[in-house]
Amino acid sequence: MTELDPEQAAARAAFEALRDRICAEFESIESETGSDARFTFLPWDRLDPDGSPGGGGVRGLMTGAVFEKVGVNVSTVAGSLGEEFGRTIHGAADDPRFFATGISLVAHMMNPHVPAVHMNLRFLNTTKRWHGGGADLNPPIPYAEDTEAFHAAMRGACAGGPPGDYDRFKAWADDYFFIPHRGVHRGVGGIFFDHLEGDFDSHLAFQIAVGDAFLSSFAAIVRHRRLAPYDDADVRRQLEWRGRYAEFNLVYDRGTLFGLKTGGNVDAILMSLPPRATWA
Amino acid sequence: MTELDPEQAAARAAFEALRDRICAEFESIESETGSDARFTFLPWDRLDPDGSPGGGGVRGLMTGAVFEKVGVNVSTVAGSLGEEFGRTIHGAADDPRFFATGISLVAHMMNPHVPAVHMNLRFLNTTKRWHGGGADLNPPIPYAEDTEAFHAAMRGACAGGPPGDYDRFKAWADDYFFIPHRGVHRGVGGIFFDHLEGDFDSHLAFQIAVGDAFLSSFAAIVRHRRLAPYDDADVRRQLEWRGRYAEFNLVYDRGTLFGLKTGGNVDAILMSLPPRATWA
Repeated sequence: MTELDPEQAAARAAFEALRDRICAEFESIESETGSDARFTFLPWDRLDPDGSPGGGGVRGLMTGAVFEKVGVNVSTVAGSLGEEFGRTIHGAADDPRFFATGISLVAHMMNPHVPAVHMNLRFLNTTKRWHGGGADLNPPIPYAEDTEAFHAAMRGACAGGPPGDYDRFKAWADDYFFIPHRGVHRGVGGIFFDHLEGDFDSHLAFQIAVGDAFLSSFAAIVRHRRLAPYDDADVRRQLEWRGRYAEFNLVYDRGTLFGLKTGGNVDAILMSLPPRATWA
Repeated sequence: MTELDPEQAAARAAFEALRDRICAEFESIESETGSDARFTFLPWDRLDPDGSPGGGGVRGLMTGAVFEKVGVNVSTVAGSLGEEFGRTIHGAADDPRFFATGISLVAHMMNPHVPAVHMNLRFLNTTKRWHGGGADLNPPIPYAEDTEAFHAAMRGACAGGPPGDYDRFKAWADDYFFIPHRGVHRGVGGIFFDHLEGDFDSHLAFQIAVGDAFLSSFAAIVRHRRLAPYDDADVRRQLEWRGRYAEFNLVYDRGTLFGLKTGGNVDAILMSLPPRATWA
């Protein structure tokens, strides 16, 4: 992979710093619960289809007492999308070269009363340059106050003005995080945005605001519910709900598809899958 | 749905009779193991996208002591594929109307030493009429003698001459039952065939021979291994292996895609998913 330009390097550094804040906070929650679980980090390299170096990433994974499985991946990749796939990607119809740097996080929680969560931020370059991302809350057993707190945090991250646009990005999440064949949403929503072009600094600042709002609101929800009593019926509900989550990720998720189609690291891409799931 | 023509009615009747033989044999295996598990059958109706009746099917499901979850679905559906999807289906590029009758079976077994299995037979009509199907063995813990017995049974079903063609259909299965993003096969193979056009009677007879060969060879394997001792490590291996199976079905399987795209019954289509699965 060739050297990063200043915007690419800034985006990668910001995503890595966010990753470090998230991991430190999640490890603190484990410590507060009497667990010594820590993230392990595994670097991986990507080869372009022609065999040349195509970047790579670092897969972080923690299995603990509160976080049954949380994966956070920062990847920085470049190369060619291939002709057919390139036609489906913004700005790559006539030139399949691409660059992407991003952070992707999914947490599946031990306690069925604690919501699972997803957060993803990315900076993509083809003949266009754009920012995308989102975060959504996925409670097996939903609580209105958690949903409201999470949405309020997302609204706050959007409140700094453009490119933030809460109503639009919330509606986009409702549209995106939907399982058509079941006619249900996969969770209780959040925000989703993509193809945001324009001033780099304000877009990156908006993305990091989303990441930090995710972190503070989710950490508060986890601390509030991590010790809630639960029974076998709650676990059954959680595991069946995780089956729906796996369906969404494997059948519809654009990030999963992008990763598999561009020869990304399979373990890092499928890190989002639940540690355990059931289908009736 | 309009009345079936004689070939359509004959195919449906043959698939239903095969279903009855399979269910009776699997229930016998449960009885021999001291379990009173029996299949339950749930009829379902399909509506065409325009709201008119589009056929339906019967979903059979048993959860027992040997069969942790076995689903067998016979469906007979007709209507329109829709313009976009029709272009991807044999003979439907210019006329999206279709008819399909078929049997589909997936068994996930309690004992990790007993292989999971899949079998499917279908008769499809667009502007063309063709037969397709296959069966493949999916052991979490493979045994060469089981693999050989299953392949020998498939070879036997093909031995009656055309349309049977073991070498071609075995290679087709190796090609089809493959998980590209992991670079591994989903199981130890079997046979796969599609778009077989020609004399209806000999093609249907071939399909039923495949179904009965599947039944006798699989039942023998199950009876041989159903009481084999196993430990936690075997179960972990089984559950992780089932995660791979779910990935294949949700990301690549043509039948699953066909069902979801044609508004089939979601529970019947996703009956193939494992009762429990894990992802590391």
